[in-house]
Amino acid sequence: MLTDRYELTMVDAALRSGTAGRASVFEVFARSLPAGRRYGVVAGTGRLLELVSRFRFGDAELAWLAENAVVSSRTLDWLADYRFTGTIRGYHEGELYFPDSPILTVESGFAEGVLLETLVLSVLNYDSAVAGAASRMVSAARGRPLAEMGSRRTGERSAVAAARAAYIVGFGATSNLEAGRSWGVPTMGTAAHAFTMLHDSEEEAFRAQVEALGASTTLLVDTYDVARGVETAVRVAGPGLGAVRLDSGDLLTLVASVRRRLDELGNSGTRITVTNDLDEYAIAALAAAPVDSYGVGTSLVTGSGHPASGMVYKLVSREGPDGSMVPVAKRSASKATHGGRKHPVRLFGADGRAALEAVYVGGSDDASGAAAPAAGGRDLVVPLMVDGEAEQRMLGVAGVQAARRHHTQVLAELPDQAFRLAAGDPAVRTELRQL
Amino acid sequence: MLTDRYELTMVDAALRSGTAGRASVFEVFARSLPAGRRYGVVAGTGRLLELVSRFRFGDAELAWLAENAVVSSRTLDWLADYRFTGTIRGYHEGELYFPDSPILTVESGFAEGVLLETLVLSVLNYDSAVAGAASRMVSAARGRPLAEMGSRRTGERSAVAAARAAYIVGFGATSNLEAGRSWGVPTMGTAAHAFTMLHDSEEEAFRAQVEALGASTTLLVDTYDVARGVETAVRVAGPGLGAVRLDSGDLLTLVASVRRRLDELGNSGTRITVTNDLDEYAIAALAAAPVDSYGVGTSLVTGSGHPASGMVYKLVSREGPDGSMVPVAKRSASKATHGGRKHPVRLFGADGRAALEAVYVGGSDDASGAAAPAAGGRDLVVPLMVDGEAEQRMLGVAGVQAARRHHTQVLAELPDQAFRLAAGDPAVRTELRQL
Repeated sequence: MLTDRYELTMVDAALRSGTAGRASVFEVFARSLPAGRRYGVVAGTGRLLELVSRFRFGDAELAWLAENAVVSSRTLDWLADYRFTGTIRGYHEGELYFPDSPILTVESGFAEGVLLETLVLSVLNYDSAVAGAASRMVSAARGRPLAEMGSRRTGERSAVAAARAAYIVGFGATSNLEAGRSWGVPTMGTAAHAFTMLHDSEEEAFRAQVEALGASTTLLVDTYDVARGVETAVRVAGPGLGAVRLDSGDLLTLVASVRRRLDELGNSGTRITVTNDLDEYAIAALAAAPVDSYGVGTSLVTGSGHPASGMVYKLVSREGPDGSMVPVAKRSASKATHGGRKHPVRLFGADGRAALEAVYVGGSDDASGAAAPAAGGRDLVVPLMVDGEAEQRMLGVAGVQAARRHHTQVLAELPDQAFRLAAGDPAVRTELRQL
Repeated sequence: MLTDRYELTMVDAALRSGTAGRASVFEVFARSLPAGRRYGVVAGTGRLLELVSRFRFGDAELAWLAENAVVSSRTLDWLADYRFTGTIRGYHEGELYFPDSPILTVESGFAEGVLLETLVLSVLNYDSAVAGAASRMVSAARGRPLAEMGSRRTGERSAVAAARAAYIVGFGATSNLEAGRSWGVPTMGTAAHAFTMLHDSEEEAFRAQVEALGASTTLLVDTYDVARGVETAVRVAGPGLGAVRLDSGDLLTLVASVRRRLDELGNSGTRITVTNDLDEYAIAALAAAPVDSYGVGTSLVTGSGHPASGMVYKLVSREGPDGSMVPVAKRSASKATHGGRKHPVRLFGADGRAALEAVYVGGSDDASGAAAPAAGGRDLVVPLMVDGEAEQRMLGVAGVQAARRHHTQVLAELPDQAFRLAAGDPAVRTELRQL
């Protein structure tokens, strides 16, 4: 029931008009990247495939639909038997995308495919928004480790998805335990200000934490006075203190003074982690400071100013009355679309870097997914679900790991200007080409 | 497991240091409203109470925590028995809030309460972000009905929460079926462009829809040519056509011409609904156009530029070694907090409108929740969960209805300038007062 009512009413009307079974191709794409961004990142695919596999209408749902007269009884029967038996192809999770990149293609009868619109878009729009922002943060951190800690700044289930998306683009860990359990993302976290204030002194709090978690823990030193907090931390934990965390204040100057004090006290091996309202710009601004790792919250889980990716789910081709496939497209003033199945290929320049997203259209429009012309580029389409069966290697923890590896590989294909934080045009131009 | 690792490690360390059971008061507040907003809206409370009631660690979760050595075996035993047995008080769902309003207070032993931090904030931060934006849209619509249709632009579970939050502040319906089933929000929706394109002509599509859903349905007329779409819609559905929907184009001029054409064709009773990338400003700009209802998506579910409310969860008071309660507060440079339990009262000016959020501090700090001084104001605190038992009237569909009524009532207390869309200061000033 994570879907919009109009999907069910369309199924209802299509069953009645005899068009529900027409072979259809739906395509997911974004008309543009978030303003100023150089590239987008596809995320959520593995999570989506699991949700599609489980997408059903149970007795409670059917009873509610009947009670509320949402659809006819014929449609209720159809929904009771529903499971998606079509084929989904698209960009590998972790892949980059650009304006009009055909990220995902759903092939099935119309009714089967139209039911998935909201679920597909909810997952891809949110997860890709986080991944796109997170990938820039990873670049800005220049090799220093990043931890995701934004669970409290987004819906409680979106938090798990955000942790997963951030890990795919190179974050090292998350605070979110469910993301650890469901998706194998490494988890981290030690203590908050509340723990210090629970105790009768900062020293007692630090002692309790070190006894429970060992000297290699991270002590939060900015509850009362940072300078004194650092001294207390070193006195309690000794030279083996893992790290100190700073969650407030003017980090650029604070970090330098904390580093000096730690070194003076003989704790040159103790790291400094900062977690104060960071985004990609703040991370970049700290490049010259002796920060060892970053924790990022709000800006990460809200896509750093762009909380939705603007992806849409459009019918691009469907069976005509004679059984052949007909490309279709919205034609009125704005939001016009390109009909027909697309075959995307990433082409490379003389320097070996990605230069063009060539989207071929107009070739074979049957459901066989004809390979796009080679042209020396990289075919961007992989099978994700075939006849209702999800590709196992895309699922669960293994899928997350595969997406993470894929992202590293494809990021290396981008030209250098793709990694500038300043607003600019997409790093790779998209060109629609007729086959 | 919808929680952060540091909450469990704090419990672990507190159990070891003997402080886990210290009576504690945690407070939820926002240091500021989203920039330029005149008021905030508390949402998510009823949903949160249900999640807190069900917050447990099952066998699978405990096994994962043990495997990953997150906490000691003593802590695992404690978690296995966990259920929240404390008391939660706070602002009624649908209530308005201002900077530093003490929105929610959690009273329990430290370990019991600290475990809820992430869940409490995830729910309140997201739901309140949506409600705050949605309430402005309702004002901007000046009595015209609004429908929430942003499910595809946020995480699939956040979508349900967003539909619920929008309904609480006055939206009339949602596209999201699960929000209908779980929370009793009226659902709506008829067809997308895909349905028109599935058929061999617009006329066939309209005919199929009218046969299935009746002439009172809403026909989407902008797939090909709006003028022709309107004529076809009227020809197919007749004078009883319920509404036409416009999802693209320059709405201000388009709506006027569609209204004229409908009237010329004798369909003066056919309504016009618009759904094209609306936010509160676009809705206000359409005030003079003959629009009958609005559908809002992206900007609603992403808080119209402010996707997280910035609420925090802070320990403000806890039991000392002698058993008395001790106010506590973070004291370092930035993010300083005010210790001690708060007693908020809304005070009214000579014109009868809300003028001041008086937050009394320093009185009784035990767990009895002493009433704040009357002073002619409205006490803002209601019981939400007492000794682990949620207030039934706050839950489920009834809770949503109560929150919706409450929002209407309290909104009427605000001065007129609170409803200006332009950026400005909070409509009600917050003042911390010593008791």
